[in-house]
Amino acid sequence: MAYLFLRLSLRPVSRLENILFPADLKRLSVDELSQLTRELKDFVLANTEVKAGHISSSLTVAELTVALHFVLNTPQDKLFWDVGHQAYIHKILTGRNKAFSTNRMKEGLSGFPNSSESEYDLFTTGHSSTSISAIIGLAVASRLSGESRNHVAVIGDGALTGGMAFEALNYLGESKEDVLIILNDNNSAIDANVGALANEKKYPAFFESLGLNYLGDCDGHNLAEIIPALQEALKIKGPKVLRVLTKRVEVETPQSALKGYTAEFVNTLRRLAETDERIVAISPAMLSGSGLNEFQKQFPNRCFDVGIAEQHAVTFAAGLAKGGKKPICHLYSTFSQRAIDQIIHDVALQNLPVVFLLDRAGLVGNDGATHHGVFDVALLSSIPNIEILAPASASELSVMLEWAVMQDFPVAIRYPRTGGAIPPDHNPRPLELHRMETILKGNEKLAVINFGFLLGEIEEALKDFEANPFVFNLRFAKRLSAVDLKTLSSFPNIWVIEDSQKRGGVGEYLAQQLFEIGYTGNFHHSGLPDEFVEHGTMQELYEQYGLTHIEFKNRFKKFLR
Amino acid sequence: MAYLFLRLSLRPVSRLENILFPADLKRLSVDELSQLTRELKDFVLANTEVKAGHISSSLTVAELTVALHFVLNTPQDKLFWDVGHQAYIHKILTGRNKAFSTNRMKEGLSGFPNSSESEYDLFTTGHSSTSISAIIGLAVASRLSGESRNHVAVIGDGALTGGMAFEALNYLGESKEDVLIILNDNNSAIDANVGALANEKKYPAFFESLGLNYLGDCDGHNLAEIIPALQEALKIKGPKVLRVLTKRVEVETPQSALKGYTAEFVNTLRRLAETDERIVAISPAMLSGSGLNEFQKQFPNRCFDVGIAEQHAVTFAAGLAKGGKKPICHLYSTFSQRAIDQIIHDVALQNLPVVFLLDRAGLVGNDGATHHGVFDVALLSSIPNIEILAPASASELSVMLEWAVMQDFPVAIRYPRTGGAIPPDHNPRPLELHRMETILKGNEKLAVINFGFLLGEIEEALKDFEANPFVFNLRFAKRLSAVDLKTLSSFPNIWVIEDSQKRGGVGEYLAQQLFEIGYTGNFHHSGLPDEFVEHGTMQELYEQYGLTHIEFKNRFKKFLR
Repeated sequence: MAYLFLRLSLRPVSRLENILFPADLKRLSVDELSQLTRELKDFVLANTEVKAGHISSSLTVAELTVALHFVLNTPQDKLFWDVGHQAYIHKILTGRNKAFSTNRMKEGLSGFPNSSESEYDLFTTGHSSTSISAIIGLAVASRLSGESRNHVAVIGDGALTGGMAFEALNYLGESKEDVLIILNDNNSAIDANVGALANEKKYPAFFESLGLNYLGDCDGHNLAEIIPALQEALKIKGPKVLRVLTKRVEVETPQSALKGYTAEFVNTLRRLAETDERIVAISPAMLSGSGLNEFQKQFPNRCFDVGIAEQHAVTFAAGLAKGGKKPICHLYSTFSQRAIDQIIHDVALQNLPVVFLLDRAGLVGNDGATHHGVFDVALLSSIPNIEILAPASASELSVMLEWAVMQDFPVAIRYPRTGGAIPPDHNPRPLELHRMETILKGNEKLAVINFGFLLGEIEEALKDFEANPFVFNLRFAKRLSAVDLKTLSSFPNIWVIEDSQKRGGVGEYLAQQLFEIGYTGNFHHSGLPDEFVEHGTMQELYEQYGLTHIEFKNRFKKFLR
Repeated sequence: MAYLFLRLSLRPVSRLENILFPADLKRLSVDELSQLTRELKDFVLANTEVKAGHISSSLTVAELTVALHFVLNTPQDKLFWDVGHQAYIHKILTGRNKAFSTNRMKEGLSGFPNSSESEYDLFTTGHSSTSISAIIGLAVASRLSGESRNHVAVIGDGALTGGMAFEALNYLGESKEDVLIILNDNNSAIDANVGALANEKKYPAFFESLGLNYLGDCDGHNLAEIIPALQEALKIKGPKVLRVLTKRVEVETPQSALKGYTAEFVNTLRRLAETDERIVAISPAMLSGSGLNEFQKQFPNRCFDVGIAEQHAVTFAAGLAKGGKKPICHLYSTFSQRAIDQIIHDVALQNLPVVFLLDRAGLVGNDGATHHGVFDVALLSSIPNIEILAPASASELSVMLEWAVMQDFPVAIRYPRTGGAIPPDHNPRPLELHRMETILKGNEKLAVINFGFLLGEIEEALKDFEANPFVFNLRFAKRLSAVDLKTLSSFPNIWVIEDSQKRGGVGEYLAQQLFEIGYTGNFHHSGLPDEFVEHGTMQELYEQYGLTHIEFKNRFKKFLR
C-alpha cells in the first residue's frame, strides 16, 4: 500500500473532515479532489474490518466516486451503483462520514446501499446486474413527469455478464432513454472475470450493436480525465456508455484453509470425483467462495466457472446431465433466486440428476438483507421431482452429497458457510429417502424436529434438563414418509425448528400433513418471520429471532417440567 | 395461402407418406426435399386446430427443419429447438407423422418438444432462451466423453432478447465449445420483436464482439442455400452462428373481442389510468395476449413492451415505481418464474408499489407442463412486503386491481385467462386487507375456503343440497386476519380448495395458522399434487385432479348429510 507513505509526505491539509455532503465537493479544484480521494482511501482502510472484496471494490472506484459526486447533483440526479459493494466512498461523501465506523455492524451502516439509510442510496442492493433496468425506469418516470435530471448507472464488467443487464441494454438501445451507463472495467467479477466480452475487450462493437452511443474509455484513476469525460457525456442526450478503466486495488486478505461446511463439501466432492469420472462442477463466479478452486486444481477440465450468470449455470448443468454427466451446481442460496425458472423448467421438468449445492443458506450475517439465504426452502419446495435437503452438521453435508450424486433425480442441498456458534454433537447415519433421523430419544411428551443447522443450539439448550424430548432431524424438506408422520403424531407436542422463513418452510408442510392424518396435539413452529432481516452477526440475528439455545431453553422448561 | 394452389399443379408424387424418420430424407434430391417441404406445410395446416402462434412458427421454419434433418444425423447429433413452439415439422419428420393429428390433445402429442415422447426431443421445453446453455452443456459432455457429434441450437430473434441467451453466448465465446447456433431471424417474438439488436440488425458486430464466428446469412426458404450453408458451418470447429432469414408465414386468426378476466383487467386498467396519470403498464412480449394492446391504443406513451425479458420488465417497473409511477407489470404466471429474484430484491425489498398481474394462473390447458401457472403462490408467498391475491371471478379481478393500485406496497394478482367452465355467481364486496369474503352462510359443520377461480365449481356442486356449508373466499394468500382465523376455528370441518400446487399453497399456511391457535377439528385440502401436469383441456385436467363439481359433490355428500 505504497500510497499510504506517499500521502504522509504530500499531505497539505485534511479535506475530508470538511466534506459532509456532495455539495461540499463543488468548490474544490481537481488537485484538491485528488488529495481528498487519497484521504478517502486511507479513511476506508482505517475504518473497516479486513474484508477484501468490498474494500477493494470501493477503493478501486474512489476517483470515479469523487468525480461523479463532483459532476452530478445528487440526490436530484439519480446515481445507481450496481451490486453496491463498491459504495463505501459514496456513503462517506453522502452524509455518513461519522457513521462509517459502524459499517456492517448491527444497527450500524449497511455494507451496501440502503434506501432506508440515505436518500442518496436509490435502492437497497446487493445482487448484481440490476442497475440498468432500474435507472431506465427512473429515467422514463422523470421524462413522463417532465422532470429534467441526469440518470447514471455504474456497472462493473463482472456484473455486465448477468443476463438481465443485457436485457436492459437491448431495451435501452431501442427506447433511447436519456441514460448514462458507466462501465467500470477492471476485468474482475468476484473472481477473475469470465466471458468472451471481458476477455476480447470488444466493448465498442458490443454496445454499438445494441444501438448505444459508445463514448470511449477514460483512465479511472485520473480525475483530470474522468471529470471532463463525465461532463461531456452528460451533455449528450440519449443512451450512452462511458468505459472507465480501473486497476483493482488489491487489499491483502488472509488466505485461510477450508473449514466447516465448505471443507466437507470440497473434500467429499474431490473424493467422489476421483472414482466417478462423470462428476463435474459448475459455479457462477464463486470458485473461491465455494471452495471449488481446490476442486479445480485437481480436476481443471471438470470445473466450470461461468461468471455471474446463474441462469446459464443451471441450464448448462442441465445440458451436462442430459449428456450423461453428474453436474454439481454450486450457487449461493440468495443468488439461486435468479435461476428458479431454470431449476423448474430445465432441470426438474426433465428430471435430470443435477445436484445443487445452495451455500450460505440461512442468515448470513453482516451482508444483510440482500444476502440472507432464507427463501430457498420456500422457493424450491413446490417444484416436483426435486428433493431438498439440509444437513444439521458439516459432517452430514458430506453424507448428503454422497447420497445425492447417486440419485437419478435432481437434489438440492442447502447449507450455511460456517454453521452456528455451537456445532452439534452429530454422527449422521446413512440417508434414507424421506426418512427423518432420530437424534435423541427421550420424554414422550415432546418431539422436536430440526431442519437445518440449529441442532447445536437445541442440544445446548437441553444440557441442563434431566429429561430430554425426542429430537428428530428432518433432512428432507419436501416429503416425510408416512411411517415417520405416524411416529410424530403419537407425541402430544410437536415443535418444528427451522433456520429460514416459516412461510413456505417445512413447518407449514408438516402442519398440513399432520392435520391430514388427524393429529390433534399441540404444534409449535420456530423460524424466521415474514420480514426482511437486516445485517448483524449471525449470532446476533438468530438471537433477535429467538433461534438460539437461550430462547429454546425457556421453551423447553415449559414442555419438560 | 397461395402455395396450396401452386402445390396442386406441381405435385409429382407424395413424398410425405414415405418419410417416417430423418434417415428417409437422405436419399432425396433438393428438388424432392422442396416438394416434401410443401407437403409438410399442407399437412400441418390440415392437421392442426387454428392456433396461429405455433402453426406460423412451425411453417416459417419448414425449410430449415427439413434441411437440418437432412444434414444432421439426429438423434446422435444433438438438435435443440429454443422454446419449441416451432417443432411441428420436426415432430412429423421424427416418427410422429401418424400421431400428429392428436397434437395438443390429452394423451396425444405435446405441442412442444417433449423428451418423454421421442428421443429426438432433447428437452421438454416451452420457455424461451434456454437452448444455448443446454446445447453447450451437451457439447461439453460429449467432449469430456470423447464422443464426436454435432451440437446445434435453433433460436429465434425474439428468444435471443432473453438474458440467459446472452449469458450463454458470452460463455460460449470464451469456452469455444464446438456448437452451431442458428439464429432464425424473422423479426418476431410473440408480438413484433423489440430491442435494439433486432431493429438495428447489427448481428455480425454483436456476435463477433462475443468471440463468436459469425458465418453470415442465408435465405431460410431456399433449401439450395440452407443445405450447403449448414454443411459448411458444421465443418468449422468451435462456436459459430449462422443467421437464417425467414419470413413469418402468417396464418389467419380470428380476432376476438376481449372477454372474461382479460376484458375485466384491461377495461378496469383503462378506467383507472384515465384519472391517475401515474399508472403505466409493462409487458414482456405479451401485449396482445394480455389485452394491453387495447391499453396501448389509448395510452401509447404509458405502455411498455420490453420484449422477452421478464427480469428487465420487473426491475424496470421497480425503477418506474421509485420514480413515482404506478407500474402495472403484466406477466404470464409461468414466465414470472424468470423474475423471482427481481420481485424479491428489486421490488419487495424496496417495498415499491408495483402491481403484478400474473395471467394464465392455474392449469392453462393444452400448452401443457411448461406453461401451467401453478407455482406462483408457492414462489411468492415467502416474500415479505408483497400481498398475493387471487380473484374468484372475473369481476373480482376488477375489484382487486382497483384496490391494488391504491396501496403503497407491492401486490400480485394471479388469475386465469378464461376462468373455469362454470362462472361463479359472485358479486364481490370491497376488499379489506387480510380479510376473507363470506360467499355463503350455511351449515356450521363445514367451512369451505376457496382460493382462486374454482368457486363456480363449488357452487355447482352445492346445487342439489338442501343445507349448504359456509363458503369463504380467501382472497389474500399470505395472511388471514386473526379474527377470520378465529371464525374458521369454530368449524369442526375445514376444507381448503385452491387451483394450484398444494405444496407451498394457502392450505399449508392455514393448517399451520390453525394449529398455532389450537384448532383440533378436521382439515381437508384440495389442490394440485406434487407432480408436473401434462396437457389437455383445462376441464379435462381439473377433472383428472378431482377439482371440479363432480368430485366436490361427492365430498359434500359426506360432510352435509
